[in-house]
Amino acid sequence: MTTASVVGASGFTGGELLRILDGHPEFDVVQATSRSSANKTVGHAHPNLRHLDLRFSDPAELESVDVLFAATPHGVSMDQIDRFREAADRVVDLSADFRLDTEAEYDEWYDGHARPDLLAESEYALPEINRENLRDATLIASGGCNATATILALKPLVDAGYVGDRTPVVDVKVGSSEGGAGGGAASSHAERSGVVRPYAATGHRHEAEIEGHLGLSVAFTAHAVDMTRGAAATCHVFPDDRVTTGDLWTAYRGVYDDEPFVRLVAGGSGVYRYPEPKAVAGSNYAEVGFVVDPGNARIVAFGAIDNMVKGSAGQAVHAANLACGFVETAGLEQTGYHPVGAP
Amino acid sequence: MTTASVVGASGFTGGELLRILDGHPEFDVVQATSRSSANKTVGHAHPNLRHLDLRFSDPAELESVDVLFAATPHGVSMDQIDRFREAADRVVDLSADFRLDTEAEYDEWYDGHARPDLLAESEYALPEINRENLRDATLIASGGCNATATILALKPLVDAGYVGDRTPVVDVKVGSSEGGAGGGAASSHAERSGVVRPYAATGHRHEAEIEGHLGLSVAFTAHAVDMTRGAAATCHVFPDDRVTTGDLWTAYRGVYDDEPFVRLVAGGSGVYRYPEPKAVAGSNYAEVGFVVDPGNARIVAFGAIDNMVKGSAGQAVHAANLACGFVETAGLEQTGYHPVGAP
Amino acid sequence: MTTASVVGASGFTGGELLRILDGHPEFDVVQATSRSSANKTVGHAHPNLRHLDLRFSDPAELESVDVLFAATPHGVSMDQIDRFREAADRVVDLSADFRLDTEAEYDEWYDGHARPDLLAESEYALPEINRENLRDATLIASGGCNATATILALKPLVDAGYVGDRTPVVDVKVGSSEGGAGGGAASSHAERSGVVRPYAATGHRHEAEIEGHLGLSVAFTAHAVDMTRGAAATCHVFPDDRVTTGDLWTAYRGVYDDEPFVRLVAGGSGVYRYPEPKAVAGSNYAEVGFVVDPGNARIVAFGAIDNMVKGSAGQAVHAANLACGFVETAGLEQTGYHPVGAP
Amino acid sequence: MTTASVVGASGFTGGELLRILDGHPEFDVVQATSRSSANKTVGHAHPNLRHLDLRFSDPAELESVDVLFAATPHGVSMDQIDRFREAADRVVDLSADFRLDTEAEYDEWYDGHARPDLLAESEYALPEINRENLRDATLIASGGCNATATILALKPLVDAGYVGDRTPVVDVKVGSSEGGAGGGAASSHAERSGVVRPYAATGHRHEAEIEGHLGLSVAFTAHAVDMTRGAAATCHVFPDDRVTTGDLWTAYRGVYDDEPFVRLVAGGSGVYRYPEPKAVAGSNYAEVGFVVDPGNARIVAFGAIDNMVKGSAGQAVHAANLACGFVETAGLEQTGYHPVGAP
Repeated sequence: MTTASVVGASGFTGGELLRILDGHPEFDVVQATSRSSANKTVGHAHPNLRHLDLRFSDPAELESVDVLFAATPHGVSMDQIDRFREAADRVVDLSADFRLDTEAEYDEWYDGHARPDLLAESEYALPEINRENLRDATLIASGGCNATATILALKPLVDAGYVGDRTPVVDVKVGSSEGGAGGGAASSHAERSGVVRPYAATGHRHEAEIEGHLGLSVAFTAHAVDMTRGAAATCHVFPDDRVTTGDLWTAYRGVYDDEPFVRLVAGGSGVYRYPEPKAVAGSNYAEVGFVVDPGNARIVAFGAIDNMVKGSAGQAVHAANLACGFVETAGLEQTGYHPVGAP
Repeated sequence: MTTASVVGASGFTGGELLRILDGHPEFDVVQATSRSSANKTVGHAHPNLRHLDLRFSDPAELESVDVLFAATPHGVSMDQIDRFREAADRVVDLSADFRLDTEAEYDEWYDGHARPDLLAESEYALPEINRENLRDATLIASGGCNATATILALKPLVDAGYVGDRTPVVDVKVGSSEGGAGGGAASSHAERSGVVRPYAATGHRHEAEIEGHLGLSVAFTAHAVDMTRGAAATCHVFPDDRVTTGDLWTAYRGVYDDEPFVRLVAGGSGVYRYPEPKAVAGSNYAEVGFVVDPGNARIVAFGAIDNMVKGSAGQAVHAANLACGFVETAGLEQTGYHPVGAP
Repeated sequence: MTTASVVGASGFTGGELLRILDGHPEFDVVQATSRSSANKTVGHAHPNLRHLDLRFSDPAELESVDVLFAATPHGVSMDQIDRFREAADRVVDLSADFRLDTEAEYDEWYDGHARPDLLAESEYALPEINRENLRDATLIASGGCNATATILALKPLVDAGYVGDRTPVVDVKVGSSEGGAGGGAASSHAERSGVVRPYAATGHRHEAEIEGHLGLSVAFTAHAVDMTRGAAATCHVFPDDRVTTGDLWTAYRGVYDDEPFVRLVAGGSGVYRYPEPKAVAGSNYAEVGFVVDPGNARIVAFGAIDNMVKGSAGQAVHAANLACGFVETAGLEQTGYHPVGAP
Repeated sequence: MTTASVVGASGFTGGELLRILDGHPEFDVVQATSRSSANKTVGHAHPNLRHLDLRFSDPAELESVDVLFAATPHGVSMDQIDRFREAADRVVDLSADFRLDTEAEYDEWYDGHARPDLLAESEYALPEINRENLRDATLIASGGCNATATILALKPLVDAGYVGDRTPVVDVKVGSSEGGAGGGAASSHAERSGVVRPYAATGHRHEAEIEGHLGLSVAFTAHAVDMTRGAAATCHVFPDDRVTTGDLWTAYRGVYDDEPFVRLVAGGSGVYRYPEPKAVAGSNYAEVGFVVDPGNARIVAFGAIDNMVKGSAGQAVHAANLACGFVETAGLEQTGYHPVGAP
């Protein structure tokens, strides 16, 4: 078995990593750290993991492992990266600390960067756009959930040259798990229930991430809606020339036909005609779809994921599988549910 | 008292009309019709109205009243309009039957129109854009909820010339009450709960309504989300020239400062920084707001309403107040709630 | 006008008081205090009240008013009661500080009491069981929401002698607004959404309140469920002798026929056959109902309220109306909504 | 591989069977029937199963398989049982048709029974109370979800003799998936969202099932609440003699320590202190817990399950595993999620 540790394991993404790694045929989790919950069982924080015989340990004492997954808040990994890399041959970071390529971007979108020397070395975890570079990678940056949904929806249009001169509009809807465990007044059930809340009307940091990895500037707005898990990106794209539905099928199939975790859902009949988070809840699948709006010379492209899986912990494990040379889909074959609520 | 009747009163908008008219100082509801619930109390269909001593009657026998409110499915009013007008001096129709101006539009967006001769006569019920024409109107068409949220968000930008050559993108999120009582598999709680579902990815009929009454073509996409009441329009607008936040405050204040039911909410601190349906749930208020995105040369404008009130029955009564010469806000001063869920 | 102040006005119940008093024909709110939000507008904390021209002031400087409503956490009122009564002729307290009759009960169920001398003087705010004593009362204790729902459901059974030797079981389901603004991890949307959570499996303090005011010991368990507003009590009662449905109608009608805010809902057809919070959401109504279970020699009695209105601020204003000699229903006639979600 | 078919596969429980069997190491699904969706892909009805290369076929032509799972509405299996048994060596029925032991019970609680000769032969699927009889069973009746949650919560109390003379009260809360696909007005999102609705105040058929399999008469009331999946039973039990928390731990551990799918959750700290559906959502686990209420001489026992898994399709597969001699937990090891909403 390949040994793994999860740093910051009492948070939501940390718990999701533990869930996935527990069912993974290759990984053996030997340490889960949490400053606030040290010595408590992982089941205390994550009731779904009550069957695990594992307790949180103090992050000050990292065990030596093959792969260290860091699920710490933004800013921690860049400070602790030397310790992390000393403890593990490979580090998979789920924060934003190694997602962008240059110090200048961190100066613009974040509060600078403590270790810009490592940015060129880190690999973005989304296999659909970076598979080959992930093989043997030793520093991996798992993508943001909104960026992931958007990049997957738009990549075939970018590749096919169907994005025109106009900046695409990306209107995202996300669930409450994105905010992480804890959270303030705005995250309380009474204030957060039933919302359609523009929580990042402009200037969302994922805009930089999308531009960095897709090479496309988008006008991005994110809304909190009433679900727990899920991120849905509706991308409004205005091609310079006429594009048909057949063109789009060709473009999307060309990019995704061999992808194990991308499903094309574009029209058809029944209740679920376009991508939506319910259809992938609990799974590592992304649904991607599109529709042509001839009257407005527009393409509407959709991307829907479970933000905790494909948008976070699942993507991280997917990348780790590639880096470690495992079967790419190992530990990630979990099917979703129907019916399912938020979930 | 001015007598009123509600035709199609067992549906959701019919019930909302009864609720508002029951608390109205000028109106006296003398008839509520329902084919399916004839002879049952209105409280049987609408549990909030159990205190009313009123039973549904058969729509075949309309009583003579001053104002008839028609809350029937699309297509009924155009067929029944002569009966309605025979029964009442004024007809306020909540369906789409008299919202558009020309037969050609009905041919394009609906299945034609049975009484195109009346289209020029009907007045669109939204006072914020049509107040003067509503005074003494005898045929009034209450607007669609998505169109209402969008028109209110965009009108100051149109008036100020801040909408550039690019077609604005309007991304709408709506609650389940929009679908009306009944509904099929897609409306069941198990399938509808927790969704972000593109239910009208393109070609939504409100696109025509917006163009007709705002004089602006928009690229419109509507999503079902998990709330019962509420419609939120996020409008992505690309002005040809630079527009500042100050310019926008001037534009929005100029249009809405005297409007009794429009609130400007644009940034600030706290939990509720932009318009959202929770903040107006249960009330006739619309919240309208905006933010400048300099990096993308974009304005994001928001409109949020309770689709059952400002987006339907409240707007209808507001217009009826104007037509009847009542105090404009009569019966509509109900304050919303906090905290409130869907609601 | 009668002047009023709300102490602790930035919390949920404080905001609900402001909402109700704003629409009240007799009261004029001259002060709303909040330590944390001093100098901010009330609309900053309560977006539904953005139209009010009122700012929070520091609770250290209480203005002289006719009625002071205290919406402070448990323990504050008993400490501040002299200041409150100095500032106002009448004090209506929405906390638990003056609900129980004896110091011994506070020693058993709470952490003792700072002013036991006042307990005999305070009047319980629920008019359905204490109307006459509320007239001219100067210290009023608004009841707990769970206790209110339970007392209303059970009172006719107690009065008629239909509660047998067996302790009734009261199984309550409540919404997230009960926890108040703020709240910790358990109140976050991600942890609180979709729950059926036994948050007070035994020993809930409202058990004492029910016993004190109904004279009946009950075995009480409370669950958090996924709604924002609402409290529903399901009461399982085992009469010593056979009781028929007719007996129950007689008993409930006898007690509630003249009550302006109690509706009897017991069976019938349609979607809403028994009391449920949705049917009264946003209103001061309580729905009360019952069904006989002959096979188990059981009566199931239901009580459903909006915990923020009938279970808190509405009840407080109702009691204040009685104490001030106003029309009893003044300011409380607001009808509920249909359809409505949490709300 | 052991071949299996699912009859009635386009419904919710049919889809859940397909999901579980798809991940099962021993079963190979060769047929999924649906009258209404014949020839459509299973992914058309169940979006989580879009990856399956399987179409619904007409139930008139059953293929020969080793195990036939019937997920048809109540009444169908008893009519079709000869066809089912001709097609398969083993039949696992998820309806209520073979859950009760005698024709008299079906006469009392249902509309009689077409094949009472088979009732003695059928085995109740809940392994925790019927494991040995399930080995080699050829006709298996999967239990009802409410009955399952209740039986699991109460069994240790029954076995230990801790249920006194008083009939226990069982107050159940269930999610909307229990009603199955389709559903009428009461199941629509607008009417069903945010409810605490007593949908079976008395006389629920699961009362008979609990009595039949637990040998205990209970006073049962079921409420619909706002979740999609989940059933939670709160059981109020009044022992004749004093029972301590230690006694209960001994009783529950004695019954469940070796059970692979039962977790004891009784108090402790943190957010999840008692059983609740969120903690087991998406898994075959049941959480069972208890608390002593000395003041009322009461034991409150809790049972929480995912009604679609442990309460239906998971239980059915569990029983089939036993009948076929497979590893008991095969295909059912799926861990739940955190955080998770309804789910």
